Amino acid sequence: MKVTPVVIAGGSGTRFWPLSRQNNPKQFLKLLGSDSMLRATVERLLPIAPPADCYIATGEKYAERCSAELPETAKSHIIAEPSPRNTLPAITLAATVIKRALGETILLVLPADHYIARTAPFIAALKKAITLAEKELIVTLGITPTAPETGFGYIKSGDKLDETACKVAAFVEKPDYRTAETYLASGEYFWNAGIFVMSTTRFFKELAARQPEAFALSQKWLDATQEDFSQILADTWPAMPATSIDYGIMEKAENLAIVPVECGWSDVGSWPALPALSQINDAGNMERGRVISLNTQNSVIFNDSDKVVATLGVKDIIIVATSDVILVSSKGDAQDVKALVDLVKNREPSLA
Amino acid sequence: MKVTPVVIAGGSGTRFWPLSRQNNPKQFLKLLGSDSMLRATVERLLPIAPPADCYIATGEKYAERCSAELPETAKSHIIAEPSPRNTLPAITLAATVIKRALGETILLVLPADHYIARTAPFIAALKKAITLAEKELIVTLGITPTAPETGFGYIKSGDKLDETACKVAAFVEKPDYRTAETYLASGEYFWNAGIFVMSTTRFFKELAARQPEAFALSQKWLDATQEDFSQILADTWPAMPATSIDYGIMEKAENLAIVPVECGWSDVGSWPALPALSQINDAGNMERGRVISLNTQNSVIFNDSDKVVATLGVKDIIIVATSDVILVSSKGDAQDVKALVDLVKNREPSLA
Repeated sequence: MKVTPVVIAGGSGTRFWPLSRQNNPKQFLKLLGSDSMLRATVERLLPIAPPADCYIATGEKYAERCSAELPETAKSHIIAEPSPRNTLPAITLAATVIKRALGETILLVLPADHYIARTAPFIAALKKAITLAEKELIVTLGITPTAPETGFGYIKSGDKLDETACKVAAFVEKPDYRTAETYLASGEYFWNAGIFVMSTTRFFKELAARQPEAFALSQKWLDATQEDFSQILADTWPAMPATSIDYGIMEKAENLAIVPVECGWSDVGSWPALPALSQINDAGNMERGRVISLNTQNSVIFNDSDKVVATLGVKDIIIVATSDVILVSSKGDAQDVKALVDLVKNREPSLA
Repeated sequence: MKVTPVVIAGGSGTRFWPLSRQNNPKQFLKLLGSDSMLRATVERLLPIAPPADCYIATGEKYAERCSAELPETAKSHIIAEPSPRNTLPAITLAATVIKRALGETILLVLPADHYIARTAPFIAALKKAITLAEKELIVTLGITPTAPETGFGYIKSGDKLDETACKVAAFVEKPDYRTAETYLASGEYFWNAGIFVMSTTRFFKELAARQPEAFALSQKWLDATQEDFSQILADTWPAMPATSIDYGIMEKAENLAIVPVECGWSDVGSWPALPALSQINDAGNMERGRVISLNTQNSVIFNDSDKVVATLGVKDIIIVATSDVILVSSKGDAQDVKALVDLVKNREPSLA
């Protein structure tokens, strides 16, 4: 069956401030390598589908930016939500648009702003997931955990389906540290990376069963003429339940499969996460742009400005220079720059 | 007798890099307040002499810059040394130019790049020094030490001349820490701030006795016609002994007086010295320019750039942003940025 990637690119975080902004969220940043996270996500899927086949679910204000990043992708594939309402409405809209355009297909839903170090096992896992989705299973990729992370949701695996896939026993919320340690030790729990593979048929069947109101709205979109589509979408969108696909469908659904994968996945959560995913020098620094460092250790120096950044005698520090802001932060505090961004919103709103 | 300030403004250090550069040394920087160090030095002397009466001893490449800083001072008062040869040649040249223009006067020699917190006692000490210089003494101001500094030369005071002045017993080199502690405890030692007050007559008498070669050259300058002056200066300058006035004259001279003074003097030696001389906020930070700081302590954030500097969770750090460089340094290393500047010279010569 045809496979249609749906890249979820509607996020709007501040964790990479000052590089990320309200009008320049993480999926558009070139944090690792020379491509934006969005572009890298689409290119990674090349063995499965060309960029021209991808659909992008994003916000209205990011639609043009998505097009610019992905010139091979038709503008009709850039699906702009009228307003952010979490992933269930976003994926429902994408599934509807795709069903209108293509009829039956396998949806390959994945976030635009994650990093995957090893493409081969990732693609192999997706291909496995596609074969299961063709049998009307909803399939999720489960990232084999490498640390007792408390910042991710987990998926508990159940009975084996075959050598490379299991049933899903349960979706579980972000655990506390102790619980995360037991998850890690058990070998039965996997990180939920928000990657789902399923047929349009199965998706709408599940939507009808778990979210009948959302399903009813989606049928209006499906039945709309091309001329009326935008207006009907705008009128009905506020009535969509603003929930996640995890909570709205997956946690309630049955017949879910998980394909475990070890592929060097990262959600690239904050500036201090970058060195582990990037080339670093002998002093443990990730240096990007024009940087001259001396006696500088275990730091991120990300220079996207017109100036030279020079460092001397510092360690465990994050320096980010853009065209209008210079951030200097300790590693610890950089994991949540939100408090600083809130202060900036008050003092220099245009920079937040 | 007429008093003629001679401000020594030929320095070319890198201790305030990246704000200071080869073409923008410390005397031209606005490190403290809205005036350059040079301008502040001249304005501080107002109770003794107007800016129009001041002479500036500087290098050829800084002459225009000095004029721009001091529009009230005639261009003929900006004395450009053909090349840097330390303070003895610089002061000899200035004394010669001044003698040619004014005849006998009291020279008030002082550096362009020091800070004085309390002008009143400083001016009172200078006035006292002038009265002693009128009696053909060479007089130096002695800064009452406040710490066992090892970075300064000291002057040992001798017998009292009167209530506010002593004879100089000896000039002494930079001491080690233990010695500096005994100097501080004794009450007999003062910091040598390079401030000298003396008549032109006494200066040339001393020069003839201690540096006969330099004296002989100075007489050629004195006797030169206005038309020949520049050429004779250029021809003879390389033969001038490249030594300091301290070593070349003061350490060898007799009949020297010292006027002790407590005036909040500082040589403003490096970035970490600034907070003690400047307004700081409750967190102990000196912040200049557009700065937004959160959880930031005991730091210098000197923003002379077009960007906002935002800091988060750092302490004891120096951040300096200019139009082309962003420096981030620990306080300890910032006291000597020379090693970093040397690296910059190799990598980005235009920024050193």
